[in-house]
Amino acid sequence: MTKAYLVTVALFALAFSLASASDPAPLQDFCVALKDYSDKSAVFVNGKFCKDPKLVTAGDFYFDGLNIPGNTYNKVGSNVTNVNVETFPGLNTLGISLARIDFAPYGQNPPHTHPRGTEILVVLEGTLFVGFVTSNTDNRLFTKTLNKGDVFVFPVGLIHFQVNVGKTNAIAISGLSSQNAGAITIANAVFGSNPPINPDILTKAFQLDKKVVEYLQKEF
Amino acid sequence: MTKAYLVTVALFALAFSLASASDPAPLQDFCVALKDYSDKSAVFVNGKFCKDPKLVTAGDFYFDGLNIPGNTYNKVGSNVTNVNVETFPGLNTLGISLARIDFAPYGQNPPHTHPRGTEILVVLEGTLFVGFVTSNTDNRLFTKTLNKGDVFVFPVGLIHFQVNVGKTNAIAISGLSSQNAGAITIANAVFGSNPPINPDILTKAFQLDKKVVEYLQKEF
Amino acid sequence: MTKAYLVTVALFALAFSLASASDPAPLQDFCVALKDYSDKSAVFVNGKFCKDPKLVTAGDFYFDGLNIPGNTYNKVGSNVTNVNVETFPGLNTLGISLARIDFAPYGQNPPHTHPRGTEILVVLEGTLFVGFVTSNTDNRLFTKTLNKGDVFVFPVGLIHFQVNVGKTNAIAISGLSSQNAGAITIANAVFGSNPPINPDILTKAFQLDKKVVEYLQKEF
Amino acid sequence: MTKAYLVTVALFALAFSLASASDPAPLQDFCVALKDYSDKSAVFVNGKFCKDPKLVTAGDFYFDGLNIPGNTYNKVGSNVTNVNVETFPGLNTLGISLARIDFAPYGQNPPHTHPRGTEILVVLEGTLFVGFVTSNTDNRLFTKTLNKGDVFVFPVGLIHFQVNVGKTNAIAISGLSSQNAGAITIANAVFGSNPPINPDILTKAFQLDKKVVEYLQKEF
Amino acid sequence: MTKAYLVTVALFALAFSLASASDPAPLQDFCVALKDYSDKSAVFVNGKFCKDPKLVTAGDFYFDGLNIPGNTYNKVGSNVTNVNVETFPGLNTLGISLARIDFAPYGQNPPHTHPRGTEILVVLEGTLFVGFVTSNTDNRLFTKTLNKGDVFVFPVGLIHFQVNVGKTNAIAISGLSSQNAGAITIANAVFGSNPPINPDILTKAFQLDKKVVEYLQKEF
Amino acid sequence: MTKAYLVTVALFALAFSLASASDPAPLQDFCVALKDYSDKSAVFVNGKFCKDPKLVTAGDFYFDGLNIPGNTYNKVGSNVTNVNVETFPGLNTLGISLARIDFAPYGQNPPHTHPRGTEILVVLEGTLFVGFVTSNTDNRLFTKTLNKGDVFVFPVGLIHFQVNVGKTNAIAISGLSSQNAGAITIANAVFGSNPPINPDILTKAFQLDKKVVEYLQKEF
Repeated sequence: MTKAYLVTVALFALAFSLASASDPAPLQDFCVALKDYSDKSAVFVNGKFCKDPKLVTAGDFYFDGLNIPGNTYNKVGSNVTNVNVETFPGLNTLGISLARIDFAPYGQNPPHTHPRGTEILVVLEGTLFVGFVTSNTDNRLFTKTLNKGDVFVFPVGLIHFQVNVGKTNAIAISGLSSQNAGAITIANAVFGSNPPINPDILTKAFQLDKKVVEYLQKEF
Repeated sequence: MTKAYLVTVALFALAFSLASASDPAPLQDFCVALKDYSDKSAVFVNGKFCKDPKLVTAGDFYFDGLNIPGNTYNKVGSNVTNVNVETFPGLNTLGISLARIDFAPYGQNPPHTHPRGTEILVVLEGTLFVGFVTSNTDNRLFTKTLNKGDVFVFPVGLIHFQVNVGKTNAIAISGLSSQNAGAITIANAVFGSNPPINPDILTKAFQLDKKVVEYLQKEF
Repeated sequence: MTKAYLVTVALFALAFSLASASDPAPLQDFCVALKDYSDKSAVFVNGKFCKDPKLVTAGDFYFDGLNIPGNTYNKVGSNVTNVNVETFPGLNTLGISLARIDFAPYGQNPPHTHPRGTEILVVLEGTLFVGFVTSNTDNRLFTKTLNKGDVFVFPVGLIHFQVNVGKTNAIAISGLSSQNAGAITIANAVFGSNPPINPDILTKAFQLDKKVVEYLQKEF
Repeated sequence: MTKAYLVTVALFALAFSLASASDPAPLQDFCVALKDYSDKSAVFVNGKFCKDPKLVTAGDFYFDGLNIPGNTYNKVGSNVTNVNVETFPGLNTLGISLARIDFAPYGQNPPHTHPRGTEILVVLEGTLFVGFVTSNTDNRLFTKTLNKGDVFVFPVGLIHFQVNVGKTNAIAISGLSSQNAGAITIANAVFGSNPPINPDILTKAFQLDKKVVEYLQKEF
Repeated sequence: MTKAYLVTVALFALAFSLASASDPAPLQDFCVALKDYSDKSAVFVNGKFCKDPKLVTAGDFYFDGLNIPGNTYNKVGSNVTNVNVETFPGLNTLGISLARIDFAPYGQNPPHTHPRGTEILVVLEGTLFVGFVTSNTDNRLFTKTLNKGDVFVFPVGLIHFQVNVGKTNAIAISGLSSQNAGAITIANAVFGSNPPINPDILTKAFQLDKKVVEYLQKEF
Repeated sequence: MTKAYLVTVALFALAFSLASASDPAPLQDFCVALKDYSDKSAVFVNGKFCKDPKLVTAGDFYFDGLNIPGNTYNKVGSNVTNVNVETFPGLNTLGISLARIDFAPYGQNPPHTHPRGTEILVVLEGTLFVGFVTSNTDNRLFTKTLNKGDVFVFPVGLIHFQVNVGKTNAIAISGLSSQNAGAITIANAVFGSNPPINPDILTKAFQLDKKVVEYLQKEF
């Protein structure tokens, strides 16, 4: 019975990620991204080059596999499956994207921002503790415990997180108000950039012992 | 067993509706709509007046109940539960909204448009046959049969529909790229407006017998 | 006398069509569309590729022929002449377009929407009965009879129509708030798509007898 | 006979003025400006406060009188009748406006800019010589002689003019891609501001004799 | 002599901060924020209510004091003086703001983001080491050492920092592409929010010892 | 001593020019303009084609030389150094630009507009008398005398000027809310266009003697 339950969970695990309210508006019915064209031509535009509309088929507006649970066997115990313009070319010029987020028990989607999108999240399975922090200088924290069917919104650019506080897997769908909202995981960007930020800078910024910073930079 | 299954369906039935890519961008961290203020003051703005940010609480970014199935006992056999700025004030200025769509067996979300938003839909349960029609003069129809975990996008302003072609309930979550994308059900707006459009106009527009038009106007 | 009158009508018949308020803003003085470039290269962008500004001439900002009446010998008795980025490359990036609409006596511009633009219309000749229907669930109909020099506005994405209720030709100029607002004639998109929408879907959506639907699909 | 002709001219003289491509997009079907509300309350917003949508009537989307010729008995021999959000409240949030421009024989709409809109113009009567100048440092002049039914576009913010080079009245309709594109008549703004710009500044800017500048400042 | 030099440095220390490219466009010449109106009325809008344009004076478009050095006697050794819509009401609706940044020797403007704006910075005095990190999953670090007269751009929403690597004070002016771009200092928002984020969450997110997290939360 | 002073002036002379609030938003972290690509390919887009992000280096976000005073030995005694997308490719898609403005004693930046941007200016050295004129029909002039550290804002598209009213050089930094705000110097565009505007038009527009117009056209 429990087993059957988990399978069910897996099937409904989805996460929307709708990006920023300010993507430029479309100037035609659709402009399906031309996959790999920029890679070949080494020329890019804001957004993507598009394929000939006469060659577009229904398959260009279709994406499958959001029923497949992401692999949460990692340090933070979560996984994000993005359905944005990189994986779903039909979204180009349309100002929206999605993600499915899977959480192992006690897993978390650690503090991060979306530089180009507001996120609206709905819980499909499990119980999530979520929150966001406002900008300086208040840095107010707003949090809520969400159960199945609960919705929460994370305004564009603000630091936010989701934590599975239940004993079972959790699943959420998120939307972000851009075709490519981007995501910046704070710990990774700060301590795991490539190349690393000079540890002296982080030592002062985070008021940490330099050894702790160097330890963190090895971790991320 | 079937009963248990239906309960499960109900729990996962959700529908995102993320509106238009071109909502004006936010000019502060958030601007939570001040409920009923315009009703009382009889003064409105583009979007909504907002409450004092100092009085805003986490509850303003929270909406519940998307786990509750909509009532599909109606002529078309479907139901849309909107999570937009009207029902969820925290979305104001953030350029995104959601909807859960429930379908009875053989039910449909009949041909409609969203005047201010692109829609991205993911199937949570069941099998949907979906499609959209491009603008004049091609009026090309793009269709696809979607199963659990499949995603489809309906570009802003184009006529589209979803039909449950399975024998069980179906559920979808949609996002629309606006805080208030709006929806125009074609049959209702054309044949069921208030007051009705002069039947002579519709008779010519749809090349229908006037009696059929008058019959339709009674129906809607 | 009547002959002279008709000539006069022809001379003043024009129709503006200014498209959507949210076209991306221009990033240079002008960006004249490079005609046929995408057709040859099979690569597209949001909007159009532009020609070398050094090669641009005054002719690129010029369009002629809006004094020529459109041919209204068709089922609905109207004709739209579009002056948008497809026919007038100089409009690219500039967020506006026009149309001239001609109406035979009792002709109509049947219910339609512009997915990417608000329309503002001025009557040059004749008497038009015009209206639009708001979105769900009110579906309020706003109508007005317009004479020479009267102006009406149809908000972006809403279903609207214009009917010549006079005994003579009528002419209007419309603007739409996009370089390519698009037009979706409801009857054609619903009953005349290519390929056709499954008649069972339309039978239920419009509560029509299936034979009527099949008849309509032959007509459009 | 000539008299009758002039009457006819007057009846068809109209000028569209569609404003800037970048007005914020609407967040509801419509948001009709609440006339005089700001005057009374001394509080303003970007755009206009709106009236209760339940109290909106078809008249709010209607403007009349564009068939009435403007009075061209002035120094430049032209007149602009604006149909923008100030005179037509229904345009609020909809990103578009119009104008009718009347020209006496040899009259001109002198060099001016629209700070918030591109203009597209169609000639209804007469012959206009029109042009615009690009920005620094090229300052290229693009000109064209337009006859009945000819269309020209003046990109947002660029200096442009229209001159009646015929012996009869001329009439044009223009659209501008904003609900309130604004107009800046160069001579008036430079030499007729209130209070006047220090003549020493203009003397150097225009390399003019100070007496000429002072004479101009009296004129405007 | 050295003393005089330092005084000079202080006088020229300025920092622009121009906010996000997507503020809604203005719909009139100006819309000067009405100071304290929202505080009194407890009603807000996206952006600010504006004062009666007839009462606006030149002083509303004027701000002074950017020649005054900020106080850098704090843990990070830097100070930001914001010239945004909160401190300069004339910026309302105009999509831009500034900041002056002062740096003590070896001081830093620690890793932070602007949720609603791109920043362009010019160095007026001293030598800064600056950098930004791209979004997941590359997290590429771009850095540069800047001297007097050097300019650098930090794209909207990305984590960036500036460090004074010289032995003297340093001064920069920044612009941000919004009237209120916001700033999120990572360490403060993550470890110093109000109330604090549950230390268990941060322990896992940053792979830190819980005691270190608790220590950090006391610090910020 | 005076000499030393002038050197100091030169070092701090910078001018920001942040362009229009309505540039389309970025759809990726950055999109660095591909220099000379359009020149070679003779194909353009709104904004610029971009280089392969994998090949982008920190140098692409870097511009130097704003510490170098512009040459003010010209008729108006001022010089503008632009840091916009033409000179600094990293700004592409980011909605902002800068300029340094140098003024000789009694020099001026003569009346001009930015067709695509609001300007915010800060004085680094000297004393400037600045002003702008509102649009028709008020044409109100707002002026202010600015000293070191004073800031002023010139709303998008309005005619404005800056005059050095001190006995020493003056320096300002300006931002404009667009990557390419453009500038239109009124005297040059009106009297110095290429080819010239027909002097009869300007004679009437400016109510000038035709000889004065012809003299001016030789000057500019």
